[in-house]
Amino acid sequence: MKRAVVLLSGGLDSTTALFWAREKGYRLEGLSVLYGQRHARELDAARSVAIAAGCSLNEVSLSLPWLAASALVDKKKRLPRLPLGRIGKDGIPSTYVPGRNTIFLALAASLADAVGAEAIVIGANALDYSGYPDCRPEFLEAFEETARQGTKRGVEGAPLKILAPLLRMTKRRIVELGLRLGAPLERTWSCYKGGRVPCGCCDSCKLRAKGFSEAGVADPALAAA
Amino acid sequence: MKRAVVLLSGGLDSTTALFWAREKGYRLEGLSVLYGQRHARELDAARSVAIAAGCSLNEVSLSLPWLAASALVDKKKRLPRLPLGRIGKDGIPSTYVPGRNTIFLALAASLADAVGAEAIVIGANALDYSGYPDCRPEFLEAFEETARQGTKRGVEGAPLKILAPLLRMTKRRIVELGLRLGAPLERTWSCYKGGRVPCGCCDSCKLRAKGFSEAGVADPALAAA
Repeated sequence: MKRAVVLLSGGLDSTTALFWAREKGYRLEGLSVLYGQRHARELDAARSVAIAAGCSLNEVSLSLPWLAASALVDKKKRLPRLPLGRIGKDGIPSTYVPGRNTIFLALAASLADAVGAEAIVIGANALDYSGYPDCRPEFLEAFEETARQGTKRGVEGAPLKILAPLLRMTKRRIVELGLRLGAPLERTWSCYKGGRVPCGCCDSCKLRAKGFSEAGVADPALAAA
Repeated sequence: MKRAVVLLSGGLDSTTALFWAREKGYRLEGLSVLYGQRHARELDAARSVAIAAGCSLNEVSLSLPWLAASALVDKKKRLPRLPLGRIGKDGIPSTYVPGRNTIFLALAASLADAVGAEAIVIGANALDYSGYPDCRPEFLEAFEETARQGTKRGVEGAPLKILAPLLRMTKRRIVELGLRLGAPLERTWSCYKGGRVPCGCCDSCKLRAKGFSEAGVADPALAAA
């Protein structure tokens, strides 16, 4: 059975990507990373989603003090509050976490090379997104080459595939795909702020609300909150 | 003052690379990673070397259970004992740690992007080496492109340089360079086994002994042991 490592943050996108990979017939190896994010509660969502998917979840905890440069890590920094139309179009925002997806993909490539997985699945999206450089197709292509050159399976002729099924989808299409796949969207957490209930004001809340609104569906996580 | 993140394992190569970067005038930001290596004592060496160089050392601790696939992590596995002439020419050895340098460089890129360093220095060597895929020039070039695409400084037009000054040197030349630069080679640790004194039998001990022997110099770490 073909095997895939799936990066699972517990948000809407990675959860949909996980269920996409499941439908494709992959045996799933989930991977979640605690890196000091202010919304560490997203990892509770990741665990709950992994249980719903019936997949194992590898949890990695990182202590990288320099990430406090990011407003997504340092709670004393203010989160940006952009109008929806400017999100992702205003340069790299203060919530950018230096090198985050490079680290996540490196951990995933390591796990994949160790357990014999042929693919890494990532819910990256470069359309309705916050404008992070490490969510773009150019980055993912470059990483695929890095994994081809830097892993045992790569140099032995079976390079890892980096699969980003949501890369060019709107949030609406992501919501629709998640619903079609039966992904437990009510268990997911997207809000950057990480309070008791979603703030509704951060980039992530706004993009998520846009997706559900355009899909004509109420967000089941809000009903559950 | 230009700034560089230097991956420092505490071995001969990374210590020489650190002092190379120091001579080049970089302000140094050391980075060491504990990943369960059986020779975790190399990190004591790294700390001692950082002190000698007068540079700060960022220490990261990773708990990645799947790395037990490697004989360099799982102490129950036997270390290879190859004749010197076959080291690095016999396929990827059991001491390969899945994705190790991808993870190390990802952490270094993250740190560099956060603190504003323009370069990552790595003591990788693809000549007198154990045959790991992630020590080869093709891998380092691919990672440089990944960092260019996946970091803030990369997309803003100031991409990180990946500097591997020892990449094509023999161990003899590395020893000679280290000595010329005044690197404290007596503080370094190379042995994979990680006992009280170097085993003399592992790939790393043999390559190191070859370097000092061909340079016509006694290994100061053996005198210190």
